[in-house]
Amino acid sequence: MDKMFDLPSVTEMQAPEFKDFAKEMVDYIANYLENIRDRRVLPTVQPGYLRPLIPDEAPQQPDKWEDVMSDIERVIMPGVTHWHSPKFHAYFPTANSYPAIVADMLSGAIACIGFTWIASPACTELEVVMLDWLGKMLDLPKEFLACSGGQGGGVIQGTASEATLVALLGAKAKTMKRVKEEHPDWDDHTIVSKLVGYTSNQSHSSVERAGLLGGVRLRGLKADANLKLRGETLEKAIKEDLDAGLIPFYVVATLGTTNTCAFDRLDEIGPIANHYNVWVHVDAAYAGSAFICPEYRYLMKGIETADSFNFNPHKWMLVNFDCSAMWLKEPYWIVNAFNVDPLYLKHDMQGSAPDYRHWQIPLGRRFRALKLWFVLRLYGVDNLQAHIRRHCAFAKQFEALCVADERFEIFGEVQMGLACFKLKGSNELNEDLLRRINGRGNIHLVPSKVNDVYFLRMAVCSRFTEPADIDYSWKEVAAAADELLAAQKK
Amino acid sequence: MDKMFDLPSVTEMQAPEFKDFAKEMVDYIANYLENIRDRRVLPTVQPGYLRPLIPDEAPQQPDKWEDVMSDIERVIMPGVTHWHSPKFHAYFPTANSYPAIVADMLSGAIACIGFTWIASPACTELEVVMLDWLGKMLDLPKEFLACSGGQGGGVIQGTASEATLVALLGAKAKTMKRVKEEHPDWDDHTIVSKLVGYTSNQSHSSVERAGLLGGVRLRGLKADANLKLRGETLEKAIKEDLDAGLIPFYVVATLGTTNTCAFDRLDEIGPIANHYNVWVHVDAAYAGSAFICPEYRYLMKGIETADSFNFNPHKWMLVNFDCSAMWLKEPYWIVNAFNVDPLYLKHDMQGSAPDYRHWQIPLGRRFRALKLWFVLRLYGVDNLQAHIRRHCAFAKQFEALCVADERFEIFGEVQMGLACFKLKGSNELNEDLLRRINGRGNIHLVPSKVNDVYFLRMAVCSRFTEPADIDYSWKEVAAAADELLAAQKK
Repeated sequence: MDKMFDLPSVTEMQAPEFKDFAKEMVDYIANYLENIRDRRVLPTVQPGYLRPLIPDEAPQQPDKWEDVMSDIERVIMPGVTHWHSPKFHAYFPTANSYPAIVADMLSGAIACIGFTWIASPACTELEVVMLDWLGKMLDLPKEFLACSGGQGGGVIQGTASEATLVALLGAKAKTMKRVKEEHPDWDDHTIVSKLVGYTSNQSHSSVERAGLLGGVRLRGLKADANLKLRGETLEKAIKEDLDAGLIPFYVVATLGTTNTCAFDRLDEIGPIANHYNVWVHVDAAYAGSAFICPEYRYLMKGIETADSFNFNPHKWMLVNFDCSAMWLKEPYWIVNAFNVDPLYLKHDMQGSAPDYRHWQIPLGRRFRALKLWFVLRLYGVDNLQAHIRRHCAFAKQFEALCVADERFEIFGEVQMGLACFKLKGSNELNEDLLRRINGRGNIHLVPSKVNDVYFLRMAVCSRFTEPADIDYSWKEVAAAADELLAAQKK
Repeated sequence: MDKMFDLPSVTEMQAPEFKDFAKEMVDYIANYLENIRDRRVLPTVQPGYLRPLIPDEAPQQPDKWEDVMSDIERVIMPGVTHWHSPKFHAYFPTANSYPAIVADMLSGAIACIGFTWIASPACTELEVVMLDWLGKMLDLPKEFLACSGGQGGGVIQGTASEATLVALLGAKAKTMKRVKEEHPDWDDHTIVSKLVGYTSNQSHSSVERAGLLGGVRLRGLKADANLKLRGETLEKAIKEDLDAGLIPFYVVATLGTTNTCAFDRLDEIGPIANHYNVWVHVDAAYAGSAFICPEYRYLMKGIETADSFNFNPHKWMLVNFDCSAMWLKEPYWIVNAFNVDPLYLKHDMQGSAPDYRHWQIPLGRRFRALKLWFVLRLYGVDNLQAHIRRHCAFAKQFEALCVADERFEIFGEVQMGLACFKLKGSNELNEDLLRRINGRGNIHLVPSKVNDVYFLRMAVCSRFTEPADIDYSWKEVAAAADELLAAQKK
């Protein structure tokens, strides 16, 4: 090399040291997960706890990896909420499994950015086939599967929020095109101002947010007494809006709401939406995993009417975040809507395989299909079904314990791995109950509120959960109630 | 447990087997990366290659992990484009380092979803402090740093595309509010129809896409002869648009364009944008890493005028994808614009630490700050600076080789780790050259085109690159030119 170049050298971790470090981390991970039940599920730290524990600035010279390892317990773990503890019952589960962790290690090593086919063909092609495997496991209509030879296919999104937004943007593009043909004199902003989408008032907050992000009106329709969105409600709203000169374009049907795991009546909503040219997006973020079990598929009746379907293997199917599976019957509405195609991203094979960058909000993407491949192969369908069925059984176990205590009542219907319950009595009483449960620190729950009734959600989250854990969690709830009722008597 | 519950059992990988599997993967990873130079950088597979190599469906019963391991070389590697090979010169680098891989393993084990502070305080707090560390390394104005005690702070986004979109949406919300106060009679759609943003015609395709996603007009302004967007060009456009009754609201200044690594004149753009109440977003996705070296900071002169600043440690700072660092002076414009706050996500500590879900498009988020922490500590600032300086020196080395061959010319100015070059002659000649280079399969480049001139981009990408690799890459280019010119003489 020419001496004109002053070449600094980098002192960095070499392979032998990496092997020691990574293998120690493997042991740490196994130890963490196998003993996670022993940790306090919810940390006791106060906001700002971490800053004083570490320096104000990055070091100039490298630290030792052994010091980094030991700082995990000192700095990080005191502030970790342990989502994989059997004592964690908040939100919905997020997945974690050994096969997925190992797959992500490989993904980190290959570290390709699969925005186009040529950028790493394996990254795109494994994703196409894995979404077919998964679609078959759910018995999705073949129009959603790439292997059917049609236009449809699946893609891994980061989150259900993004899937909802992508579907909304596809629906918007499709409707804009149709309306422009009908009204060549209307400009884009005029059309956008007339668009109206629909969702249940029970749908996830990310649906409302997708409307805000997409700059379109979304109406929250009232769910029925069982918290399901019904077809007649949708049709009434569509007719009202058409009469008002608006343009219905999008409806989100939720299969398994976050509040109570209620299932919208897709079998009613879908045909009506199809009739009025309204894009049907199905958000089955949590509960969709259950459709790998035939006995739950009745809850997705009407799926053939959907334009897009989404669920999160990263919630309940043991594939680590992020892996949100989305299928589209007509992906070209999304591909065409946001196709900006600079020369540096063009390649000779365009058209013969999907360039997934057109299917999503970000440009870059990790090799996430590896996680699906490893989990599907190293569990097998039977064990994944057993995992789902176990969690459903645990929710029933909790329900039985709850109804046996006359102070309590179940709120709504226990569905999947979620049991909603409350003390008979006021919202304030139940707010107090939740404060006491989380304050005791032995289990962690979050509340919700429907029709002004405040209740507690007990989600089965951990793959380590055993029947004894459910008994334990129930006893914690009951003990907090004892405390609360004793305090009231004073 | 009550016998009424029929509890299926799950046969899954246990800790001892995980340790064997994960440690074999550690060895595989080290072997893959240490010998990556020996693999063909660009695969030879055709679209559809993968499907016949694996079954049509997921297995019912678990496969063996040893079979999964051996399928990596059989199924995956033939279709991998090796982004970390020293022979890979396409796009821009994507980062990969041993400390980041180990940190991601820990992130996968903790597997929390850090959407709120309480969902895992360590996840939020380490991110706040790491963005301060990083901001100090770049010498960002203190208004961007959380430790300054003001409103500002940093966040890890998935990609620069998302940062550009988030900033655009923040700018939109801020301007909508101002205009509504000035014109209470204008409705939202009227205001949106008047909004206009600006960017250089050299900016990344994701900027145009952010405009499409956000449903607002973005004007691509002509860069100067050095491919930099200038202040006077922006001011002329703003004045034209104001005269036409439009509302300028957003400008993206690119520091290090994808085409040629040109730097917009932020020092000119910023003051003008500030004067006209236009949000300044700085996209330094690739080149921002270089600002950890004081000698390159003159290229971000004017940074104090910016409202938001973004660069990707996952490109050039050895932190594996995804880790796109973004700082905002006034994050509340984004927080307030998309704040949908259901009860199940509320917690007692709201307000005392950021709830990062309001700062981004998705709801869920991984514990990505761990990667930053591990990389900053295990490299140290000195080595990270050396890494940047080495890559810059390699680009200069390539430039010297190129200019010494009279058949070739450098296109534009060699900046950072990117050298743009071409054969003296037509676009067709250079298209042919690139086909031959990539066809030989020993190195991989992508082209670009500016003002109808087609050229080749040689990006220094790998942390394994040595001076001999640059010599090798140059010889490949020269050999392809020999072939081409010999073929022409026939």
